[in-house]
Order: sequence, then C-alpha cells, then structure tokens
Amino acid sequence: MSFLDRGRAESLLQEIGAEALALFQPENFSYATGAAAGMASMWRRGGSTIALVPADRGAPPVAIVGDLHGDMIRAVRPDLDLRTHPLWIDAVDVRAMERQSLGAAEIVQRGYEIAGLGAPRPTTFDTEAAFALLGEALRERGLVHGRVAADLDFLPAADFHRLATALPDYDWVDGSAVVKRLRAIKTPTEIGHLRKAAYLAEQGFKATLAAVSSGARRADLSAAWRAGIAEAVAIDGAPVTGAWDYISVGSDPWSLEGSVATGAVLKIDAGVLVAGYSSDTARSYSFGAPDPLATEIYAILREGFEAGLAAIRPGAALRDIYAATATSIHTAGLASYQRGHFGHGLGASIGSEEWPFIAADSDVIAEPGMMLAFETPFYGKGIGALIIEDQLLVTDDGIEVVTTLPRDFLDIS
Amino acid sequence: MSFLDRGRAESLLQEIGAEALALFQPENFSYATGAAAGMASMWRRGGSTIALVPADRGAPPVAIVGDLHGDMIRAVRPDLDLRTHPLWIDAVDVRAMERQSLGAAEIVQRGYEIAGLGAPRPTTFDTEAAFALLGEALRERGLVHGRVAADLDFLPAADFHRLATALPDYDWVDGSAVVKRLRAIKTPTEIGHLRKAAYLAEQGFKATLAAVSSGARRADLSAAWRAGIAEAVAIDGAPVTGAWDYISVGSDPWSLEGSVATGAVLKIDAGVLVAGYSSDTARSYSFGAPDPLATEIYAILREGFEAGLAAIRPGAALRDIYAATATSIHTAGLASYQRGHFGHGLGASIGSEEWPFIAADSDVIAEPGMMLAFETPFYGKGIGALIIEDQLLVTDDGIEVVTTLPRDFLDIS
Repeated sequence: MSFLDRGRAESLLQEIGAEALALFQPENFSYATGAAAGMASMWRRGGSTIALVPADRGAPPVAIVGDLHGDMIRAVRPDLDLRTHPLWIDAVDVRAMERQSLGAAEIVQRGYEIAGLGAPRPTTFDTEAAFALLGEALRERGLVHGRVAADLDFLPAADFHRLATALPDYDWVDGSAVVKRLRAIKTPTEIGHLRKAAYLAEQGFKATLAAVSSGARRADLSAAWRAGIAEAVAIDGAPVTGAWDYISVGSDPWSLEGSVATGAVLKIDAGVLVAGYSSDTARSYSFGAPDPLATEIYAILREGFEAGLAAIRPGAALRDIYAATATSIHTAGLASYQRGHFGHGLGASIGSEEWPFIAADSDVIAEPGMMLAFETPFYGKGIGALIIEDQLLVTDDGIEVVTTLPRDFLDIS
Repeated sequence: MSFLDRGRAESLLQEIGAEALALFQPENFSYATGAAAGMASMWRRGGSTIALVPADRGAPPVAIVGDLHGDMIRAVRPDLDLRTHPLWIDAVDVRAMERQSLGAAEIVQRGYEIAGLGAPRPTTFDTEAAFALLGEALRERGLVHGRVAADLDFLPAADFHRLATALPDYDWVDGSAVVKRLRAIKTPTEIGHLRKAAYLAEQGFKATLAAVSSGARRADLSAAWRAGIAEAVAIDGAPVTGAWDYISVGSDPWSLEGSVATGAVLKIDAGVLVAGYSSDTARSYSFGAPDPLATEIYAILREGFEAGLAAIRPGAALRDIYAATATSIHTAGLASYQRGHFGHGLGASIGSEEWPFIAADSDVIAEPGMMLAFETPFYGKGIGALIIEDQLLVTDDGIEVVTTLPRDFLDIS
C-alpha cells in the first residue's frame, strides 16, 4: 500500500518549484509505491529502485525496479505503472510448460523466454539502464526539462553525478525536506503498524523484567527481551521485521558488562519493527533502593516529562515543547541540564529516530497524524541511565499516549 | 583494530593522484580506524564519523567522531588521533566526585564539566562542525589544497555538496574504487572472522536440516536456523552481530509460503556476521525423490561449479573463472543458462555481497587474502531453487575452501 498523499506532495513540490519527485532510497521507494525495494537495494546505491512522483496529482506515479521482482510487485500492486531493468539473477518459469517430450536444455531455454529473465544479465544491476527508464518516464509524463527534486540526503554523490550526466536536461534539486514533511504525517495503516510495534515492545518489557534477578547480566536481559518479542510475535502474528534494544544495568550507562545487584539502575530503551515501522519506548527501574541522587534526578525528569507532554498538541511548535520541558527541569533543580532533543518522529527509516525532532530551534508545528517519541533522558557515569520515553500520536484535538507502562521509577527487586 | 594497509593505500592513492582519503561510510570508518562508528551513524549521513587517511604512509590518520564515544574509543585505541564534535546526547560523570556536601544541581553541573559533554548540544549532530574538524586535520597534515579522495559511493549528494562548500580549497574526487581494492584483500583477523562466521553458519545448516519433516513450513525452518545460530553462539562465544537467511521450500524459489512435502526442493542460502563480517553459504536438498529435471539441472550446475572452482587461483582473472564456469554449464547441457556473476567478495559491508564480482567482464585478478563466495545458482518457477555456494580463501598458491558441507543434492527425507 502506498502511503503517499499526492495532494500534499503536489503542494510541497510546488513550494520548491519542482515538477516531480524522484525517490531513490529503498524506504522512500516502498513508502511511495507500496512495493518492496528488492534484492538490489542491499547495496543502498542509486538506481536499483526508483519511484517517480509527478507534482501533478492526476499524473500516475512510476515505479522502476529489478526485473526479478516485477511479477511479485504486479501481483500486489496491479495498478502500478511498473518498469523493470535486469538484475544479476536469472530465472526460468516452467509451470505452464508441456515438458514431457523436451530435454533439459530446451525446457530451460523456453523457461527463460516465459519468465523474461534470461540474457543479458549485468554483474549486479545497471544504473544507467534504470536512469534511462526514469528519463523515459519523465518524458511520458510531459516533463522534458525543468526542475526535478530527489532525495539527495540518500543518493550517493557518485550516483547523483551519473544521474545528472544521464539526464542533463533537468535541474536536479534536493527534495529531502519535502520527503521528510510528507513522511512525518502518518496514514492510518502506518499508525496501526506503530501501535502494534509499541504493544509488542511492552510484551518485551514484561519479559525482560521477569528475567531480572540478582546477578543477571545485561546480555541475559537483552536475550530475555528478544525471546519475549519472539513469543509475543508468535501469538500475535504481526509482520515483525526486527527488534532492537539498548539495555544497561548498573552505574555506567554505556557499559555492556553490567549485572543486576542491589541498588542497580536498569534502563530498557527498545523498539520493535512492524512492517519496517519502529516503536521507541524507554523506562528506568531500580533493583532495591537506588542512590538517593538517582531518585532526586528521576523526579525532576518526571516533572519535566509531564510539563513537556502537557505542551504537545496540534498547532504547537516543537521548540515550545522543548522549552516547556527544559524550563521545568532547569527550574526544578537541574539548572545545567542539557539535551539536543526531547524526542523525534517515528516511522520506517534507516535509523530509529526520524524527523521532526523536538529541539530548541525547531519551527516545525505538531500536526495530527504525527507519531512521536517524547523523552527526558539523563546519562550519568556513576549513576546510570535515567529515562522516561513514551510513544504518542498527535490527534485532531490533542494527543493519544500509546505507551501504557507506568512512568514511575519502580523498584523491581 | 585497524585493517588498513597504509602501504597499499599510499600506492592506490598515488595512482589517482590523491593526497589523502576521507572515509564517511560507517563501515569504512571502522575498517580504517578500528573504532565503532557510534550512535550518530544510524542515519547514514555524511559527517557523523570521518576517517582521514593521508596518502603518505608516515602521516598518522585522524578519526572524527561524536564526543559521546570519545572516551570509549580512546580506551581501545589510545594511539589514535581522535577529534570529537558534539552529539545530541549529554552525559555527566560523577564517579570521582566527592559529593557528600553537594546538592543535585551542583553535582550535575560539575558532572558535565568532568565529562565534557554539557552544552551546547545540537539537535542530532553538527555536520559543519565535523567538516571543520576535517579541514583542520587536513591542514595539520600539510594538505592546504590538492586532490582528496572520498567514498562517494556512500556520501549522500546533499552532504557532498556541504563538504565541497565547507572545504572549497580541495579537489574532491571519487575514491570508492580505492576503498574497494583495499578492502578486497583481508587481514588475518578479518579472515578469522569470516572463517568463524562460516563455521557458525554450518551449525545453523545442521539445526535447519534437523527441523525438516513433512509439513514443516518455510518459516519454521527459518526459525530453526536462527535458533541453531543462537545455540552455536552461546557455546562458541564469538562476537556475532547478526545472521540472515534466504530459505525456500518447494517449487517456487521466491515464495515465503512453502512447506515440506514429498519431492520438495529445500534451499538454504544463509550467513552469520562475526564482528560485522558475513559468511555466505548455500545448498539445495530434496525431501524424497525430486523431479528428474531438478536432478539433471543440479548435476550440470555441480559440474560447472567444479570447473569454475578449478580455475580459481592467485593470478587468475575473475572473468576467466566466470568463463570456465559458464562454458561448463553451457556445454554440459544448458546452452541458454544465464547469470550476472558466479560469486563475490565477502566482508563487513552494508550488503552481504561485496566487490569484486566473478563476472563476465571483470578484469580483477584473484589475489591472496581475497575471501570469496563462489556459486552456481538456478532459480526455476515450477522447479525450485538449486544452488551450490561455497566460501573460499585465495591463498599464495591456490585456494582454501572454507565450507565443509557436501556438495551433493542430498535427499534429506
């Protein structure tokens, strides 16, 4: 399913005077076309997959992929205008062949013809062939020159050079900001993936906490997290594509070696990916009575968290949410507290944190459909990692907090 | 541990007239410096981490990383010339503080000063600050202008534009080919990682085969693979960073839905990552008597495999290895057989296949220290996936096949 809002794309492309948007990043390709990017995207180079989105919302988009994936994509997206270029992988199709009287050589030869996946095969994939298909698609959409935006925050400089050389009649400009703004507003399906991911992550939190006992090592808790996710997925059946965890135990937030002992701080900052969409939730716990300093700092972070959360609503500038959070923490007792951002967008990105960021200088306005992680972290060598991080959805009239875990600094001994 | 051969780097940079090599890809950074690339590399943008390698082998390299990781990198690489720029993550250090008479506010303030990780914090990281550090490092190495190579097959075009704007006195050229050629020859440590990865993968093969029974689904076998790897890792203790598998069952090589039934073809193409270094091994099996066509094609692939393998030796051009393989398959009965490459380099890359490729037009010469995957695959809709893929090391006087699995088309019913 494509998640692209063509009307918004048209408006945003008009703002930068672009006639079309060409997307090269595998994640952007899938976002715009609803199709998997395919094997050749493993190298993260330009040209293996390209989505062309004309600014004119009435002009159909074009998807350019490796030919191995053509039939599979047509099966799920029959309406998509799909063009293919050869990959290194050949394949035959003998399913409908009457092969009783044929030898292997003839079966294979006919099988290549049926599959359309015979010679010639390039070493990996042919960037110039893919760019030529893009040029054809542009011309078919009536775009013979003019400004075309591309996701230049992804496209490697060497590939951009080849693109501009192959299609010199266009004024190629950076469309990364357009893509970020489009992707920041989630569709109901994307919101569903992120809700499900957050739900599964909470099952992982429960499994991790159940594994806490004196002497348990950080690696044991990480294994318990993964096992808990696997168990929850087996029950739920969601299309989970990954999981990650930053778990720390003890007074060094960055050590991989900690183990549970009386007074230890346990931090779980973790997420699950559903169809590529990653949740992000974090909590800190103590095992027995913690260092009073940790308790005091946590209470201040909690106050800042609640103050910031109260400032999140549609129409609020992210810098104002940042300011509300920082001011609370500073005035509650940590005047020197620092932090680059108090949260970020969630989605299907290469990293778990995506634009926009809740930062001091962000003039981004919170809008309905934004799924955000909101967090007040504190990392202390000699104390441990203290953090509250919730996942929330900006709605038409406020926010819906997706995370259901208690925000207290719980003693889990 | 840095894996960079400064002598080879000097020669290769001289060939393109470059005074230095700047590496922006996280994997290249770790290769050249022996240090982890850190949190900010999650976005795969230019500037979070940079390795500067002067062409002059006597001039020390420079590593530029986010400040959060400074102490950790200094602990493992004390000799490295390390420069840091601020990340969004702040941290305090109270370990050595006498804090009895201090309140939380003062402890935190002093803790920031000790850690050097207080204000100012950027939203994520400051690309321009990182590029300024690179400019300083270039000038300190006596490079005030001239040609500098960079890994432009990675660096996003938007970031390359910022680099060229920030440091306009240099002639920036594409050093991707230099990096590929350097990385293709493995050090003993890299070879050890790839050997270990191949060994662990074979334990995963055994676990997968043990899970084969009538009705077992593809997903069950994939789960058995992962569980087998986890078990082998628990025993071995190797620093495993991941595992992947392309398992197919039945007559559709690309279906995710197959299950084991009499006559089914099972294909396991899978790898394990040790310290980022990925193995790559593949085999096909049948469950009961297979389609005679599959048996016939497999025998031809096997003959091609042995013919190609016999052609791999130091000094052989990869195109000749390709030709030996293709000619065997063509003359043994599959005249129309096609394939973009019969194998590829192995290493710590973003994808499991890395340069060089055993391809029809490759003038690359096999050299001692190259770890290659060599493969003869055949994908037939209506037949299944037939493949033999071994991992091998090019040695001073021949090759050493690392894979120990039998190459027969075994019936595993």
